[in-house]
Amino acid sequence: MQNKQPLASASGLETDVDALLEPLMADALAALNGRAPLLAGMVQYHLGYADLTLRPIDPLTIDRGKRIRPAVTLLVAGTAGGDLAQAAPVAAAIELLHNFTLIHDDIQDESATRRHRPTVWHTWGAKQAINAGDALFAVAHLPLHQLPARGVSAERTFAVLDAFERMTIEIVEGQTLDLGFETREDVTADDYLAMISGKTSAIIRFAAWAGATIAGADAVTAVRWADFGLELGLGFQIHDDLLGIWGTQAETGKRQADDIRRRKKSYPFLLLRERLDLPAQTELNTIYAQEDVSEQDVVRVLELMDAHEVRRDVERVVATYHDAAAGVLAYSGRNPTYQRQLQALVESLATRTF
Amino acid sequence: MQNKQPLASASGLETDVDALLEPLMADALAALNGRAPLLAGMVQYHLGYADLTLRPIDPLTIDRGKRIRPAVTLLVAGTAGGDLAQAAPVAAAIELLHNFTLIHDDIQDESATRRHRPTVWHTWGAKQAINAGDALFAVAHLPLHQLPARGVSAERTFAVLDAFERMTIEIVEGQTLDLGFETREDVTADDYLAMISGKTSAIIRFAAWAGATIAGADAVTAVRWADFGLELGLGFQIHDDLLGIWGTQAETGKRQADDIRRRKKSYPFLLLRERLDLPAQTELNTIYAQEDVSEQDVVRVLELMDAHEVRRDVERVVATYHDAAAGVLAYSGRNPTYQRQLQALVESLATRTF
Repeated sequence: MQNKQPLASASGLETDVDALLEPLMADALAALNGRAPLLAGMVQYHLGYADLTLRPIDPLTIDRGKRIRPAVTLLVAGTAGGDLAQAAPVAAAIELLHNFTLIHDDIQDESATRRHRPTVWHTWGAKQAINAGDALFAVAHLPLHQLPARGVSAERTFAVLDAFERMTIEIVEGQTLDLGFETREDVTADDYLAMISGKTSAIIRFAAWAGATIAGADAVTAVRWADFGLELGLGFQIHDDLLGIWGTQAETGKRQADDIRRRKKSYPFLLLRERLDLPAQTELNTIYAQEDVSEQDVVRVLELMDAHEVRRDVERVVATYHDAAAGVLAYSGRNPTYQRQLQALVESLATRTF
Repeated sequence: MQNKQPLASASGLETDVDALLEPLMADALAALNGRAPLLAGMVQYHLGYADLTLRPIDPLTIDRGKRIRPAVTLLVAGTAGGDLAQAAPVAAAIELLHNFTLIHDDIQDESATRRHRPTVWHTWGAKQAINAGDALFAVAHLPLHQLPARGVSAERTFAVLDAFERMTIEIVEGQTLDLGFETREDVTADDYLAMISGKTSAIIRFAAWAGATIAGADAVTAVRWADFGLELGLGFQIHDDLLGIWGTQAETGKRQADDIRRRKKSYPFLLLRERLDLPAQTELNTIYAQEDVSEQDVVRVLELMDAHEVRRDVERVVATYHDAAAGVLAYSGRNPTYQRQLQALVESLATRTF
């Protein structure tokens, strides 16, 4: 599980996120090498370290994903004047936790593939995939126990541990709401924002807060960084929703309007529905109630969105979140090297095409 | 969630386990009262605090289960000379963790009822039940963060936190093996012992180890208590297997030989199969491959067990584990009040009829 690749280039950052994370993740994952090889294997597979036969993958070809969440922790710690090595256990814990939630999400969303490979539940069944997620959640805690050895006070370590659990609860709350939305036709754009504040943004909020806390920030400053993370996470998610409808194939790798074909009730859809009169609302709900959405229906939904200026307003929402995050960042830097990298990360998330 | 009942009588112990646990559990569960009422509701329902409509249950009629695992922590802490109030956060964490594993087990085993009520997944679906378990696992950590405030050193608190995750991994390993056993016909009695060492005994092992650690035991003594817990857990599980076949209706509330009717591949079954010649093994496997086991087949399996002295040898295994646990206990007491209660608990687990 050692990595020989020039890792910085993979994440697009100068800071070598993978080099800081890999030893901590490998150390934590070693706790799985006990009685049940399948359990360790499923987790290694999900993380990209093993193939479908559970054999290790050539380190040069491992797909680790973008690791945005741990990058936020590291760069906030650096920007706030802290030591990246002290923040690295938190970054590793976040990356492991994120992957636990993905394993369970894939069961719940019945997703057959992730990162172009079959999902864990699709390969080993939902029952074993529940185990893989549960074990990875336990493993995710282990790097945090390294914090005192890296010079973080017991008090701050306990604060991080407590916030780690509460953030996980927020993620699960968001996931609970999201599953509940599937059977409701009265979900508003505001309901959706409350849901993604938990499901996808709570982890980035925690990532930023914890990075600042490890760097020694006082409580007020740490909360400002938490706000930064929340705005960043919300902007990131809604920008993703924007791309799911108006992103080009070149930008996203998927056909334009893919989220309409998949009948995803994302932010633009909810904003549109709120703006329609009752007949048009009924038309839209009828389109989304079908098993398959025809290309004619896709065009119709896009027309409705145009007519109600949904794209413009979603872009404004993204810009508002982006500007709020960028604003915190502009006034919070103690280390310009990391501040510049964090600014680049913030910009890339508002314009990202993956 | 306050409890007015004479709690000690519910557990059969003089020590009021529930009174020590309830405030800590209520405090931890308060972390769920956020955005998703269903999530909090499912967890409250599972724990017996809420009914199917998610309304609170009259405290006098709540079924909290026997709470054997937290009782082990508290009584080991007391026996080893410690303060029960210091050990209570660990006991609360163990009880919450145990319930998280039950929520996910019920999904995996497709169990429709638990404690005479519909299970969480059976009521709200497997997808939401995954969320309920995940959230409860996060919540289970929160009481542990109370340890320093109760005078436990940071060092011992981190040791307990680390062991808590590793114990959870052992449980999940055991569950992974158990699910794997369902489709195998070559599982041995030894494989089974390895499986239950994780799935059902690791938590009792941890309960005893952590109780001793909180009480200030040195590492060698704590490991002796861990052994005590493991032997207790193994004896408890295999005694349960024994009752599943030879327990009377008066003892178990179920018909005799219920585990044969349910085709459970428990310890007596595996011991029997190992002792059979190939034709008899084939006969046994054929019986267990049926959807329904006839009363004639039940009698045949019982005859085979008699002929191969399975009951006698299973009783010997239980006695061996029991004696090992009782032996550790006899020489490890610093506080005779708790030692006597712990001895009573050990005896009740070897002769329990629930």
